[in-house]
Amino acid sequence: MKLLEERIRRDGVVAPGNVLKVGSFLNHQMDVELYDLMGEEFYRLFKDSGVTKILTIEASGIGIACAAARYFKCPVLCAKKTESLNLPEDVYTSKVTSFTKRKTYTVTVAKDYLPSTDKVLIIDDFLALGNALFGLMDIVKQAGAETVGIGIAVEKAFQEGGDRIRATGIHLESLARVQSMSVENGVEFAED
Amino acid sequence: MKLLEERIRRDGVVAPGNVLKVGSFLNHQMDVELYDLMGEEFYRLFKDSGVTKILTIEASGIGIACAAARYFKCPVLCAKKTESLNLPEDVYTSKVTSFTKRKTYTVTVAKDYLPSTDKVLIIDDFLALGNALFGLMDIVKQAGAETVGIGIAVEKAFQEGGDRIRATGIHLESLARVQSMSVENGVEFAED
Repeated sequence: MKLLEERIRRDGVVAPGNVLKVGSFLNHQMDVELYDLMGEEFYRLFKDSGVTKILTIEASGIGIACAAARYFKCPVLCAKKTESLNLPEDVYTSKVTSFTKRKTYTVTVAKDYLPSTDKVLIIDDFLALGNALFGLMDIVKQAGAETVGIGIAVEKAFQEGGDRIRATGIHLESLARVQSMSVENGVEFAED
Repeated sequence: MKLLEERIRRDGVVAPGNVLKVGSFLNHQMDVELYDLMGEEFYRLFKDSGVTKILTIEASGIGIACAAARYFKCPVLCAKKTESLNLPEDVYTSKVTSFTKRKTYTVTVAKDYLPSTDKVLIIDDFLALGNALFGLMDIVKQAGAETVGIGIAVEKAFQEGGDRIRATGIHLESLARVQSMSVENGVEFAED
């Protein structure tokens, strides 16, 4: 999606440690007009997948997921992150290790809101190692539902998450794929 | 907002300990069509307040804030909750004590995204004791900006937060005001 790439080039800031700061428009301050266009693009990419539910994970994917859901005319289900050990029995859970934050957390979704008949589109803002996405896919599988696709705003294509997910055969679409980035030279995108 | 009250009557579940469960449509699974109507209603209520930015706090207010922002044609700024003590200098912070979760956390907003010229509408899903809202108002004040209003989806009017905020003179609007609730009798709303 050229518009998102141009916005990242213009307003994104590369910080040391492979950090891409897009807080001015994507995940701290949120440009809802851009979100709408991203939602429309996700609809174009997945409109034939029979999506009945969009699944995201708190917090920064929520706005993008809601924008997409308006086009799909389906609800958004937001998985929660918790570090607590005592969880009720009426939730699906999956353990996720975050390398960037160096901790393990548990992703939870209430069983009531994920029936086995759901065809799920997972949406999130960033894809790097993909661990959170594997946790969400695991939950969909536990529910007996189907992950019909994954839509990502920004993929760090130089990290392994995208390849790991594509290797499973899941239909993955990233609106912007960062091939390389550096403080000196900024961001380079992968060719389509 | 009658539509929201009716939805709470129909799909809300009162659990022991004054807990109102609205996870099926408001804050775990999200009905984006309802969100749109709520956003439109917030616009009707605050359209003459000169809103330039909507401020919310992660995570469950984000979707509603984004829906409202489409009507106001302004960005959403999402304050982060953190328990960390080492924060960068480029953020405004405010300490908030959560009685329900029995812990204190720090709310942060990047200084870059909250200029003193902003007229801020704060939006959140629930209002009970109001501590998170006072933290957000504190941050707006630190920035030298102005809180022009607060829009809430569900106010627990039998708790003190609403009165505390109205006592400051801030324009507060809650789309549904729960006057009382019990496991036996369900939810009663305050008269307008």
